[in-house]
Amino acid sequence: MTDGTGTPVTVIGLGSMGAALADAYVDAGRPTAVWNRSASKAAPLVAKGATHAASIEAAVAASPLIITCLTTYEATRAALEPAAAGLAGRTLVTLNSGTPAGARAMAAWAAERGARFLDGAVKNVPAAVGAPDTLLYYAGDRATFDEHVDTLRVLGGDTVHLGADPDLAALYESAVGATLLPALVGFFQGAALVQARGLPVSSMVRYEVKWLEMIASLLPMLAQEIDSGDYSRPASSVGVFHEAIGYEEELAREANIDASWVEPLNDLVRRAVERGHREHSISALVEVLKKPTGD
Amino acid sequence: MTDGTGTPVTVIGLGSMGAALADAYVDAGRPTAVWNRSASKAAPLVAKGATHAASIEAAVAASPLIITCLTTYEATRAALEPAAAGLAGRTLVTLNSGTPAGARAMAAWAAERGARFLDGAVKNVPAAVGAPDTLLYYAGDRATFDEHVDTLRVLGGDTVHLGADPDLAALYESAVGATLLPALVGFFQGAALVQARGLPVSSMVRYEVKWLEMIASLLPMLAQEIDSGDYSRPASSVGVFHEAIGYEEELAREANIDASWVEPLNDLVRRAVERGHREHSISALVEVLKKPTGD
Repeated sequence: MTDGTGTPVTVIGLGSMGAALADAYVDAGRPTAVWNRSASKAAPLVAKGATHAASIEAAVAASPLIITCLTTYEATRAALEPAAAGLAGRTLVTLNSGTPAGARAMAAWAAERGARFLDGAVKNVPAAVGAPDTLLYYAGDRATFDEHVDTLRVLGGDTVHLGADPDLAALYESAVGATLLPALVGFFQGAALVQARGLPVSSMVRYEVKWLEMIASLLPMLAQEIDSGDYSRPASSVGVFHEAIGYEEELAREANIDASWVEPLNDLVRRAVERGHREHSISALVEVLKKPTGD
Repeated sequence: MTDGTGTPVTVIGLGSMGAALADAYVDAGRPTAVWNRSASKAAPLVAKGATHAASIEAAVAASPLIITCLTTYEATRAALEPAAAGLAGRTLVTLNSGTPAGARAMAAWAAERGARFLDGAVKNVPAAVGAPDTLLYYAGDRATFDEHVDTLRVLGGDTVHLGADPDLAALYESAVGATLLPALVGFFQGAALVQARGLPVSSMVRYEVKWLEMIASLLPMLAQEIDSGDYSRPASSVGVFHEAIGYEEELAREANIDASWVEPLNDLVRRAVERGHREHSISALVEVLKKPTGD
């Protein structure tokens, strides 16, 4: 796995994802400095060959590339503040959740301290870090990305530069991530239905996986409809979803499940019908989500 | 594609899915009778070699296996009623949406008319009908399924018998399908965010596809947690989702998008925290969805 360049890397924040990032660098034979507020989390990495920085200042001083994996931009600045003077001339890469506004503020903070900056996101679980197909995307200065791309690619083979605006990773992170909780709650709802029937939830997993693949197969066409604003040749119409309203509620009642979270989704479908989208593609819901300008 | 048995098949209901089913049989070289309330939909199939039954009675008389693909069980019974006397000794397969109670009523109706019965679901889009990987599952008498499995497999290589209870396909259909609208609305929300930034929605598709793959990869573990009732070793905790509440709303406000549909999902997360699940797996939400017995 060693890529031969040997550029040292510092990883700050050793939660499950941060630890996976550091682990990938150790496995790749990189000189890897780690730092975490509670030092105990560094022990398994140190046992494998990482260096535990004695202070945040030492962690920053150890490498030209500093990757943080903390909970928020605020937490990242709070952790780095004592070492801020040492950031000048180094590259800071933040991998945490947050809003585009948060990423812009983080970029400004880094610039004021003379650091180059990329904000990114790991689009997978910790166990997938380092795999050839694992996606990470980054936003910020292209030359900075290009300089470090070999080092960044150690974390996942599908490493992408989204653009120079430093908030683009946070934007895509929020946009892409908007399916997570809804899809999971949909799965849990189905799980509760299967369980209420006395069947194991594991029995539906294979079908649900195929169903998610089916949903994924629809996305290119749905995106094209939204980009063109032409909803008139639906594969799945708003009307089909409108007719299905009520089934779930009936079933949830039968199984004693609280399906009230579905109601606002059904309401979006009803509002789409009211606005003349019955024969249009279900992607026309995006028009219902947009508030009238001037709201 | 011809499987050599040549058993005739009747397909009733030529919407986009029904037409795809009939098309698969014609392509497989099966004698295929079709019927639709508005006969014009049969024309492309007749041009390829299907027979257009002159009446519903003739459609039923044409084959030992009758597959219906209409909107509801009620619509199916209404269409078949004039031909009900002809159903005795034949096998009726219904492929439509509906509740388990609806499937049970349909099974009883078929039994009263002396027909054998399977209820099934096509877990994919019409364009995928006939492909080796396409999933269809069926519920009802096993011997009836076994007798017709070669014919049913023409519609998709992944053809499954769920069990003898005739409502199991409707149950799994509802359970598995519960992710569809939530996942799509999540995607549309993300699409609106990307579009508000002036970027094409198509630019997020590849990331969203990978994200759905990531979600799919979580399901075996989440199902196991729910089946065991042990939520104590989370890969993603309720607390992590709880901390993320607010990001989306902030972003939606910035982009002038109505994110009110997310609020009940956030509320499930809050209720899970209140009930002591903060450090538990996000799959503990299934416990919040279950109403207390006696409600």
